[in-house]
Amino acid sequence: MTTTNGKTLRLHMPQWQGGNLEEYHLSSRLLSWLLPLAQGPEETVTVPPPGDGPALDIEDGILAKQALLAQARAARAAVERHQPDKVLTIGGDCLVDLAPIAYLNKRYSGNIGVLWIDAHPDVQTPEETPHGHAQVLGMLLGEGDPDFVAEVDVPLDPARVMYAGLDEWSPAENEFLVRMGLRSAGSGEVAESSSTVLQWLERQGIEQLAVHFDVDVIRPQSFRPILFNKPGTGTDFLKGVPRGRLEPEHVLRLLDDVAGACNIVGLAITEYMSWDAVQTQRLLRRLPLVGN
Amino acid sequence: MTTTNGKTLRLHMPQWQGGNLEEYHLSSRLLSWLLPLAQGPEETVTVPPPGDGPALDIEDGILAKQALLAQARAARAAVERHQPDKVLTIGGDCLVDLAPIAYLNKRYSGNIGVLWIDAHPDVQTPEETPHGHAQVLGMLLGEGDPDFVAEVDVPLDPARVMYAGLDEWSPAENEFLVRMGLRSAGSGEVAESSSTVLQWLERQGIEQLAVHFDVDVIRPQSFRPILFNKPGTGTDFLKGVPRGRLEPEHVLRLLDDVAGACNIVGLAITEYMSWDAVQTQRLLRRLPLVGN
Repeated sequence: MTTTNGKTLRLHMPQWQGGNLEEYHLSSRLLSWLLPLAQGPEETVTVPPPGDGPALDIEDGILAKQALLAQARAARAAVERHQPDKVLTIGGDCLVDLAPIAYLNKRYSGNIGVLWIDAHPDVQTPEETPHGHAQVLGMLLGEGDPDFVAEVDVPLDPARVMYAGLDEWSPAENEFLVRMGLRSAGSGEVAESSSTVLQWLERQGIEQLAVHFDVDVIRPQSFRPILFNKPGTGTDFLKGVPRGRLEPEHVLRLLDDVAGACNIVGLAITEYMSWDAVQTQRLLRRLPLVGN
Repeated sequence: MTTTNGKTLRLHMPQWQGGNLEEYHLSSRLLSWLLPLAQGPEETVTVPPPGDGPALDIEDGILAKQALLAQARAARAAVERHQPDKVLTIGGDCLVDLAPIAYLNKRYSGNIGVLWIDAHPDVQTPEETPHGHAQVLGMLLGEGDPDFVAEVDVPLDPARVMYAGLDEWSPAENEFLVRMGLRSAGSGEVAESSSTVLQWLERQGIEQLAVHFDVDVIRPQSFRPILFNKPGTGTDFLKGVPRGRLEPEHVLRLLDDVAGACNIVGLAITEYMSWDAVQTQRLLRRLPLVGN
């Protein structure tokens, strides 16, 4: 296959309000810091740091709706200013992927494929959750809060969306998945091989692919910087919320394989949560000579 | 007591060769990144990143002796250039504290006290270990490799050195501790109160104190960014090497208490090891769009 060597925009988006988890802000900035120097343009979406703004309100069933909407629009403006061929998005919560994928689908005439590597389907509505990060794929498919859906000029074609690493979902999510006919490869299938995903790419004739990589798709024991590894908690923490079951090597092999079959034009790394950084910052603030 | 509001130099020293652990380099730079903006001068000691230079050789029984000596001299030059009243040192392995404490003891006429908060006594010689980070306090007391000892113009007064959180040591270390008459408060004592340390400060009439804070003095379960928490290892990892038993709150309370009794003129944070950062950087290097 042909590789398009185009302009890649690196979009930093330390959004935390979509998951209502303040620690995403520092963790996202850390993820940006850990990256090698960008070879192309970079943009950083302004996100009010936790603790600085007013308390988060629920509006139309969505927590911090106005802040999230403003950030989604700022992200859209940042991406459109550069008109990149590809976008690397550094989250922040899953909702950071709204503007990048909406842009890419329009840029490629509504024909991109989306590989959603996630332990959660992200197609809830305000009826099921006030958290925007659990609604983003629904919005990209044209459903959900009208203000966010209005940010998606060309909704995704459900036939060109596939999950990887998704094993569990709720009855309400099931209704959505069935109605849309979304494809899915569970963690066991992905662990074994990339073939289901590669077949989907081929049958749909997908040439440009956006990848949404929620790090919580990885087994918490195999990658530390994940929400579920919060210090002082055990397996009872967030009981009932599905945990990822993939190994990092499974995700990397899958990405290598799909990169051999199509052009990866988008990648968002989301829900990254470095408890190291959080614990360390808390400790440093209380040490002598640090504030001098 | 009187607080001296003097000039604080922040010294960044991502040294890793003294512990022969490459991950200290990234971890130290992360620690620097996590600090609030400095209000005073800053210096960064140039440390060859792991993998870039030649393999580490043992010379005079010390691994990477020439690199470590060059870094110690560069640190000394950086500190002397500013003639600060106080030094905050961001390590790196424990050996980073050679130049800062040597400078401070000379600056305060050989009268500083040193509180060594550590699960290890750091008084080994090349006969017991090739690793410089386990020799640094010995050097500051005037014993060990002559080239490093020559960097210490005014050796510490053993009566003005005290350990906190130290519970176990070897027979060779015991010989040194007894011969020097070094004071020590074990983890149980420190957990209970700061009184032994406060009595020592008072009896010795210590007005200026340098604190060496090796984060591995903390119980690994209570603070993640520590060597012992290497992913994929268990309690068998580094078997025989003593692990810290203090809680972060014990260290913070101790530091608060001593800051009420004397001037803390030096603080070195050492052996910080963020496995989050290490794991994440390894993952990022293999993801698409990251190198663009």
